[in-house]
Amino acid sequence: MKIVDIGVKADANRAIVWQDDQLYLLDQRVLPHTERYLLCETVRDTADAIREMVVRGAPAIGITAAFGVVLAAREAYQRSNTAWSNALRLDLELLAAARPTAINLFWAIERMSNRVAGLATGDPVPALREEAKRIHKEDIAANRHMGRLGAELFTGTTSVITHCNTGGLATGGHGTALGVIRTAHARGLVERVYADETRPWLQGARLTAWELARDKIPVSLMVDGAAAARMRTGGVGWAIVGSDRIAANGDVANKIGTYSLAVAARHHGVKFMVVAPTSTVDMGVASGNDIPIEARAPEEVLMCAGQRVGAMDVDAWNPVFDVTPAELVDAIVTERGVVLRPDAEKMAALMGD
Amino acid sequence: MKIVDIGVKADANRAIVWQDDQLYLLDQRVLPHTERYLLCETVRDTADAIREMVVRGAPAIGITAAFGVVLAAREAYQRSNTAWSNALRLDLELLAAARPTAINLFWAIERMSNRVAGLATGDPVPALREEAKRIHKEDIAANRHMGRLGAELFTGTTSVITHCNTGGLATGGHGTALGVIRTAHARGLVERVYADETRPWLQGARLTAWELARDKIPVSLMVDGAAAARMRTGGVGWAIVGSDRIAANGDVANKIGTYSLAVAARHHGVKFMVVAPTSTVDMGVASGNDIPIEARAPEEVLMCAGQRVGAMDVDAWNPVFDVTPAELVDAIVTERGVVLRPDAEKMAALMGD
Repeated sequence: MKIVDIGVKADANRAIVWQDDQLYLLDQRVLPHTERYLLCETVRDTADAIREMVVRGAPAIGITAAFGVVLAAREAYQRSNTAWSNALRLDLELLAAARPTAINLFWAIERMSNRVAGLATGDPVPALREEAKRIHKEDIAANRHMGRLGAELFTGTTSVITHCNTGGLATGGHGTALGVIRTAHARGLVERVYADETRPWLQGARLTAWELARDKIPVSLMVDGAAAARMRTGGVGWAIVGSDRIAANGDVANKIGTYSLAVAARHHGVKFMVVAPTSTVDMGVASGNDIPIEARAPEEVLMCAGQRVGAMDVDAWNPVFDVTPAELVDAIVTERGVVLRPDAEKMAALMGD
Repeated sequence: MKIVDIGVKADANRAIVWQDDQLYLLDQRVLPHTERYLLCETVRDTADAIREMVVRGAPAIGITAAFGVVLAAREAYQRSNTAWSNALRLDLELLAAARPTAINLFWAIERMSNRVAGLATGDPVPALREEAKRIHKEDIAANRHMGRLGAELFTGTTSVITHCNTGGLATGGHGTALGVIRTAHARGLVERVYADETRPWLQGARLTAWELARDKIPVSLMVDGAAAARMRTGGVGWAIVGSDRIAANGDVANKIGTYSLAVAARHHGVKFMVVAPTSTVDMGVASGNDIPIEARAPEEVLMCAGQRVGAMDVDAWNPVFDVTPAELVDAIVTERGVVLRPDAEKMAALMGD
């Protein structure tokens, strides 16, 4: 991946840019202190960018993967006008192996594959490019709609706690949980956002705080361990988070620390809202126990800001997601509607199964 | 404070060294990667060292303050053989202002003041030096005794979670919560220690992991947000923490994140143990609501490992302690005995009120 100047200022709502038939990603590893775009020239670049978290956030991973399929198809078709679909299949496997938990990755690859299957002979690129752009646009529209649905759940003005980053950076634009917060704030319903810093990767400190400060939405950063104490202090009506995969029974996989937040929310009578498009729902897994949880390198915990902080000869336990059981969730907000107190039956009704 | 070589290798159980009538502190701000002792030449140095967290941990702060009183008395007596006790009083106020939450600071100053009050005329230093050394020795003995009492609460071999650092570094030696873990491990009762990294100051990553690795006790570091998920995974019998101040009703002030851990422990049926000498108990505050909670600079959250991680123009909420209500505590272990399910009556009985 090359650093390139694409004439676009770093913008949370333009984290994924398809321009002049090229894929550019805002490098989220170095935000907020360095604002730069990277060029993904190949599907391998795209898989690397997902694995190395140049781009992260379940919906953004899905959109990026869709454009990765376009790059893969272009390469395959350039190599062979007739046998491109076999070559493409291997590339899609490579892309699917980039990260295991966010279902949106597989959802996007499958949707693009279905588009491939429906193609006549000839250059597949124009149709796939349109499909990827459609996925991107639909995600933005879904976020705006979820923003309204989530804001309607507020019964008055309150402070909220959020975890990780679920904003424009994590999606096609606007955001899931942060989209609800944005819409609710625009309606005067959000007094202050308390953003968990979200160790080990500090998405809250680096990304959420950056997005909210740019939007002039009042934000206070806090360490993850402070969320329960903040709830006890009072004035917090909602904890609002995104998701990387929602099981058929309403269990929610999300960034490590989400479950801790949900337990604390229930203990304090703070409502717990999960905001995610239906592309995040995986009706193929019965419960959260069946969701594969990615374990990343211990160094992510042992290091901070590029420096070793942990003692030497010490191991770290670094699952990057956890599962919040449905019974701790007050509302799942999707673009198809809101599920209160989710369970298998309500999820099936939502998904039309 | 000067960096000095005192011919002692950095040792968790020698964090506070009184040698050749001088006070040396192991600099805990730069552990584990730099091992150095600082010389406190004056009571002002000592107050600075406490404020700037060269030394931290409630019992260690108390012991350091006691030696600080010795330094203050020596200075005062050198200035005036007769009017030293007035000068000393101002110095003790300076020392007491160093940090607000750990009651051990005030307890040690009061104990030293009482010793001063009982002195005949003449040089107060020998008597005060003996008293400070006695406070140090008593703390180590208390820790060893609490280690045994806490270990006796184990009903079998299990993994444990701990928060912050409560080891030799935080005390005169051996440790409070970590002392129980050490003793229980020596008896084959601890399978593995899961250490919260403890943002923002990373005492878990830098200090607890360092102490445990040196003792060859199996330790896995984890981010603070992972503790609830770790409990849900199973195999954790106890969460064991120290305290900076325990109120008369058994409410426990301790490092930010402790309350979150206690809420998660109760949710999962994991037992919650607080280990602290009676010098940490403040019968003068009725409940945790009356314990002053220190707020430190937002920069502690906005920075990590000396580098800015938080977005610019963002504020942080940085209370460095929180309060765990007594009803979430299964056992308070002190050197005078164990209080199960603490309440005001049991605490009064323990303290002999």
